[in-house]
Amino acid sequence: MTQMKHMTWYEFNERKDKDVVILPVGSVEQHGPHLPLFTDTIISEGFAELLAQEVNGIVMPAINYGYKSQPASGGGPLFPGTIDLNGVTLIALVQDILEELIRDGVKQIAVVNSHFENQAFLLEAIDLVSRHMPEGTKIVMMSWWDLITQETIDKVFDEVPFPGWALEHAAITETSLILKFAPETVHMDRLIEEKIEEVPTYQVYPIPKDLVPASGLLSIGRTSSQEKGELIIAEALKGMVSIVNKEFKN
Amino acid sequence: MTQMKHMTWYEFNERKDKDVVILPVGSVEQHGPHLPLFTDTIISEGFAELLAQEVNGIVMPAINYGYKSQPASGGGPLFPGTIDLNGVTLIALVQDILEELIRDGVKQIAVVNSHFENQAFLLEAIDLVSRHMPEGTKIVMMSWWDLITQETIDKVFDEVPFPGWALEHAAITETSLILKFAPETVHMDRLIEEKIEEVPTYQVYPIPKDLVPASGLLSIGRTSSQEKGELIIAEALKGMVSIVNKEFKN
Amino acid sequence: MTQMKHMTWYEFNERKDKDVVILPVGSVEQHGPHLPLFTDTIISEGFAELLAQEVNGIVMPAINYGYKSQPASGGGPLFPGTIDLNGVTLIALVQDILEELIRDGVKQIAVVNSHFENQAFLLEAIDLVSRHMPEGTKIVMMSWWDLITQETIDKVFDEVPFPGWALEHAAITETSLILKFAPETVHMDRLIEEKIEEVPTYQVYPIPKDLVPASGLLSIGRTSSQEKGELIIAEALKGMVSIVNKEFKN
Amino acid sequence: MTQMKHMTWYEFNERKDKDVVILPVGSVEQHGPHLPLFTDTIISEGFAELLAQEVNGIVMPAINYGYKSQPASGGGPLFPGTIDLNGVTLIALVQDILEELIRDGVKQIAVVNSHFENQAFLLEAIDLVSRHMPEGTKIVMMSWWDLITQETIDKVFDEVPFPGWALEHAAITETSLILKFAPETVHMDRLIEEKIEEVPTYQVYPIPKDLVPASGLLSIGRTSSQEKGELIIAEALKGMVSIVNKEFKN
Amino acid sequence: MTQMKHMTWYEFNERKDKDVVILPVGSVEQHGPHLPLFTDTIISEGFAELLAQEVNGIVMPAINYGYKSQPASGGGPLFPGTIDLNGVTLIALVQDILEELIRDGVKQIAVVNSHFENQAFLLEAIDLVSRHMPEGTKIVMMSWWDLITQETIDKVFDEVPFPGWALEHAAITETSLILKFAPETVHMDRLIEEKIEEVPTYQVYPIPKDLVPASGLLSIGRTSSQEKGELIIAEALKGMVSIVNKEFKN
Amino acid sequence: MTQMKHMTWYEFNERKDKDVVILPVGSVEQHGPHLPLFTDTIISEGFAELLAQEVNGIVMPAINYGYKSQPASGGGPLFPGTIDLNGVTLIALVQDILEELIRDGVKQIAVVNSHFENQAFLLEAIDLVSRHMPEGTKIVMMSWWDLITQETIDKVFDEVPFPGWALEHAAITETSLILKFAPETVHMDRLIEEKIEEVPTYQVYPIPKDLVPASGLLSIGRTSSQEKGELIIAEALKGMVSIVNKEFKN
Repeated sequence: MTQMKHMTWYEFNERKDKDVVILPVGSVEQHGPHLPLFTDTIISEGFAELLAQEVNGIVMPAINYGYKSQPASGGGPLFPGTIDLNGVTLIALVQDILEELIRDGVKQIAVVNSHFENQAFLLEAIDLVSRHMPEGTKIVMMSWWDLITQETIDKVFDEVPFPGWALEHAAITETSLILKFAPETVHMDRLIEEKIEEVPTYQVYPIPKDLVPASGLLSIGRTSSQEKGELIIAEALKGMVSIVNKEFKN
Repeated sequence: MTQMKHMTWYEFNERKDKDVVILPVGSVEQHGPHLPLFTDTIISEGFAELLAQEVNGIVMPAINYGYKSQPASGGGPLFPGTIDLNGVTLIALVQDILEELIRDGVKQIAVVNSHFENQAFLLEAIDLVSRHMPEGTKIVMMSWWDLITQETIDKVFDEVPFPGWALEHAAITETSLILKFAPETVHMDRLIEEKIEEVPTYQVYPIPKDLVPASGLLSIGRTSSQEKGELIIAEALKGMVSIVNKEFKN
Repeated sequence: MTQMKHMTWYEFNERKDKDVVILPVGSVEQHGPHLPLFTDTIISEGFAELLAQEVNGIVMPAINYGYKSQPASGGGPLFPGTIDLNGVTLIALVQDILEELIRDGVKQIAVVNSHFENQAFLLEAIDLVSRHMPEGTKIVMMSWWDLITQETIDKVFDEVPFPGWALEHAAITETSLILKFAPETVHMDRLIEEKIEEVPTYQVYPIPKDLVPASGLLSIGRTSSQEKGELIIAEALKGMVSIVNKEFKN
Repeated sequence: MTQMKHMTWYEFNERKDKDVVILPVGSVEQHGPHLPLFTDTIISEGFAELLAQEVNGIVMPAINYGYKSQPASGGGPLFPGTIDLNGVTLIALVQDILEELIRDGVKQIAVVNSHFENQAFLLEAIDLVSRHMPEGTKIVMMSWWDLITQETIDKVFDEVPFPGWALEHAAITETSLILKFAPETVHMDRLIEEKIEEVPTYQVYPIPKDLVPASGLLSIGRTSSQEKGELIIAEALKGMVSIVNKEFKN
Repeated sequence: MTQMKHMTWYEFNERKDKDVVILPVGSVEQHGPHLPLFTDTIISEGFAELLAQEVNGIVMPAINYGYKSQPASGGGPLFPGTIDLNGVTLIALVQDILEELIRDGVKQIAVVNSHFENQAFLLEAIDLVSRHMPEGTKIVMMSWWDLITQETIDKVFDEVPFPGWALEHAAITETSLILKFAPETVHMDRLIEEKIEEVPTYQVYPIPKDLVPASGLLSIGRTSSQEKGELIIAEALKGMVSIVNKEFKN
Repeated sequence: MTQMKHMTWYEFNERKDKDVVILPVGSVEQHGPHLPLFTDTIISEGFAELLAQEVNGIVMPAINYGYKSQPASGGGPLFPGTIDLNGVTLIALVQDILEELIRDGVKQIAVVNSHFENQAFLLEAIDLVSRHMPEGTKIVMMSWWDLITQETIDKVFDEVPFPGWALEHAAITETSLILKFAPETVHMDRLIEEKIEEVPTYQVYPIPKDLVPASGLLSIGRTSSQEKGELIIAEALKGMVSIVNKEFKN
């Protein structure tokens, strides 16, 4: 079994000090007219489950809510349905969960993130926890996009140019991933050809309403496909497995 | 559609100021040898979904982690797999989510809780938020056990005596509810006849290891059944629908 | 001597690692037209003093202010004169005091509470402190109502039916206790026959003004008497003494 | 009636927007071999009661615990029986209480302090509260020593030279005040002739154990008397009354 | 005059609601064997001063300490001399300063950052402040590297390939900038040819000691020159001026 | 070299466990019509540099912003240009910096303060840090005014009477110090003869606008001179050197 949520405590107890415990972290954030608000969490949970199957890991219930969406990587906080946590809250939340795992005797923790804006706050939480961890405990954090090679980028962006990872929001990679992980939630017919025209080179508050397209799309999503989703998943998963093996299995 | 997680932001946007938004809150907590760690969250999500169907509501992604399990209502924090948040963290988490909803223009919020120990901290969060809510916004919090009549209690506890709600942990009501909401996660064959023998009349720290049975069972779970689950669900749901109608529909 | 407030530090110093240190926790909260705002603190201080006499304990200065009054257990925060602390403040306050005691070398701490709403926050503070306590240190928390047997309840509620502990606010038990602990502050002539008519089965914010009677009385106080106060005190005190003896004296 | 603790909420309610509400703030701190740990709170409560009688004020239950004792003004934190709050805790505690008063409609608040080290943290709390106070609300903070004239100092320090207010700890002024406010708690026979020999001109941590005399006495207490207590009380009280009249009565 | 630190309050007062107030934010962080620990702050202060001259702005005293150095963008926290703030501290610090400016009536605030790791926490602070800003107040945040065009990158990286901004730590751009801003603090003779060999594609805690070169250099610094510094400054400054003009001058 | 900001990490690393590390703490605060807003920080940095030269110390980058100016010691928060931190922020800031030093292996830390209002909050931070410091680590805090003898006071206040240290704000001592440390920032021609007429004997909020002179001057600055600056510096520096030698060099 991979899902902690369906385990009894007896089942968790038997495996807790031997197996990698995987914490998926997502967000509730606008992803344009065609993708669900839970896109990031679906992706994190999807990768976590696949990784657990490969490395005999345990998938924890996800952190469903994430840090504040930024205009140039998620459309920003002004879209209804984007439900953001303050930085200090996310730090405390992750800290508490990791500390509980460690108190339970867990030694191998892998955080799987797929919401760009979470990164700094997840690392802050992990850093604070790591200062008091017992010897031998390790925490890794992985984001799928960091594991994609240029070769795969070239294949995925065969027609549309690659806009960089931050701007790849609700665009080809995420659409392709959801087409694979939760196809029933994608509305390809609603996808429109819109993208951020002028990527801001600075930040301004109050955030202007017209900084990003009204649809919330930052980059072109055309040419998304389940096949591309498979390609990305295969490579990112391979990377994750090899990280887990390298860090935890020797 | 009831699940916010599967909505696009367009879909949420259209309904956000008309419909009740329902936030299920659970926990990751030992529930004996036969029930899953996610028992409370499964129940909260189950009720939230049913309620949403009845009142045309929107179910938010759950708060998956809850406040610290207490010995006399959840077995306490010493069971591996029980992953608890500190009080201040849960308060901040709920506060942030509610404030984001309100900033989005949501006016009707229903918090559905099924983890006993969450109550004080959820109310603290709601209280803090309510001090700055715009006129016309309302938040209700409901726990299913508060909506069960003596009549139903008598039916459910036909053989085993009712031990009180706090002690009804991993026992007849929760087992029956999970038999209905997620039967594939229940292991009736592993259920044993164990209960807390001497209910403590005070609290002591460090929490003694032998305060509760080694299984984590606080009360007798025998006689649990899907039928009893249906009975409880029917009555609690009726109560929830009537609360929502009373508070939000006039 | 029992009262730490009247001790010199020399006197405290000599007893600090041998004797039980008792921390009374109360509140400043409406208690109807006939009881003083300090009802809870008076009761906690009263029990603490009696307990100290029995077990050779030291009574600390009380925590005079408590957590937020709730409508269905204290009338709620809308009554002028109810002065409530935020949850995080009460947690920090209790944490600091307990940690100071422990730094001083105190090994045996008993928290005596008589404000229903304090419970979750007191336990959170104690839990946080207990994670770093030196071996051999113990903290117990006691609330007088948890120590009353059904037999005594039957005697006290000889005419008026027992409404449950949460609703026993400014009613027979508290009135009887104050008639014993601080009779000069009770105005029996102002006591009126009022009670909450429909006990709410859920919480709603903003808290409706008409949820509880205008007097702040939640249950019937008629038949209160000093004799009943004595009865309750005798039994609760016996319980407290036996807890202290069990936890600290072996 | 002056004591809020003995008022019913009806009584408080009638006076809350007309009368000055007085909050005494003290500490639990070593005061040498002859004075009680509660010396500061006794003094604050004593002044608060007298002031209330003069200006028809309402005395709140005291803040019993204060900020950390410093070596050169209270002996420091190493004396058993000195129970100190962290700075952030005291700030939050005072903030909560003041905000509750203001929510209740109180317009005139006087904080009466007698623990030297509390000052900065009390002012921080008041400052934070004052940023959001309704127009017309005022908070004053008074410490008795700020109201003593040179003439009175000369009278009180007729034999022993005045060491400055910070060092006047457990010495002539405080002993004289307690001889007046709570004479039964003073042990003049235990008073010894000891004082800090070299007043430190800087702070060092860890705090050296030999920085202050082993008795905790910082200055000479000889020549303390009830008459001197009366003298100090008379003058400080006159000052407090005139402050209240000036700030609140026009 | 540009430097607030040298202004009297009269001078600041006259300009506070007309002129842009510029807040430089830096860090104290290892920058290899040849650059000073204050590299980032020197750069921020340098840009702030030049910008102020161009737009008649006021430069505030810098925030001297920044967020935690990360291995792949600053070498990480293990280098002595790297003095990092926790995330919550930096957020609070920036929040307080911005709120004070706004209370003083300042309407135009430009934050100039040059420490990569600060970004998320600065934006969190600005976001929190912006929720309560008076209408008409604006805050921009600028990092010099976001304003450099590909053309300039090509010129600066004429021999050594551009490793991306995160890895450009203590390398060509920062060395060139310090050669211009504070040449006396650069030790070109100590610069060695070292760089991170395998850029990590994930994060792991505890941070391994051998993740980055022992020198703290992440990329090649050879070919740094004052001329390149001038080139970068000219372009970034032009960008900053145009941002300020666009956001504040219409 | 004395300035950490200009050191490479190699240079800091070699000296970090042998030499005293000096942290100057200042403020951004009104100092009348003739002194710069950075007066306190200039003084702290000035003393820190001189002290470092004497004891082979290392001067850290200053804490540029300080705690809230008070009317009777700094004019209060109402003067534009006075940029104050909240108490909790300053505590956290100092705590983080000290803890980082200690993690780096620094054993000898001297905090040099020159902003009156900082004192309580600096000590709170140091106290919190000191509870977990490794054996052998020491932190001292020094404020220059505590090191001035009566003899020097008599010389400096040859014409104008000494008003006490709290009121010596933007007056003779600070003006004389800046005339020595940063003469180019002093405008003696703008100095006017103004002082607080009635020193308040209590605090009141909201802070009245007319509590202090409109210029922000609390005491007479006439007769300030570079010579007096030299006198004060010589004596305070001697005191600091002797403290450092006493605490760290045996």
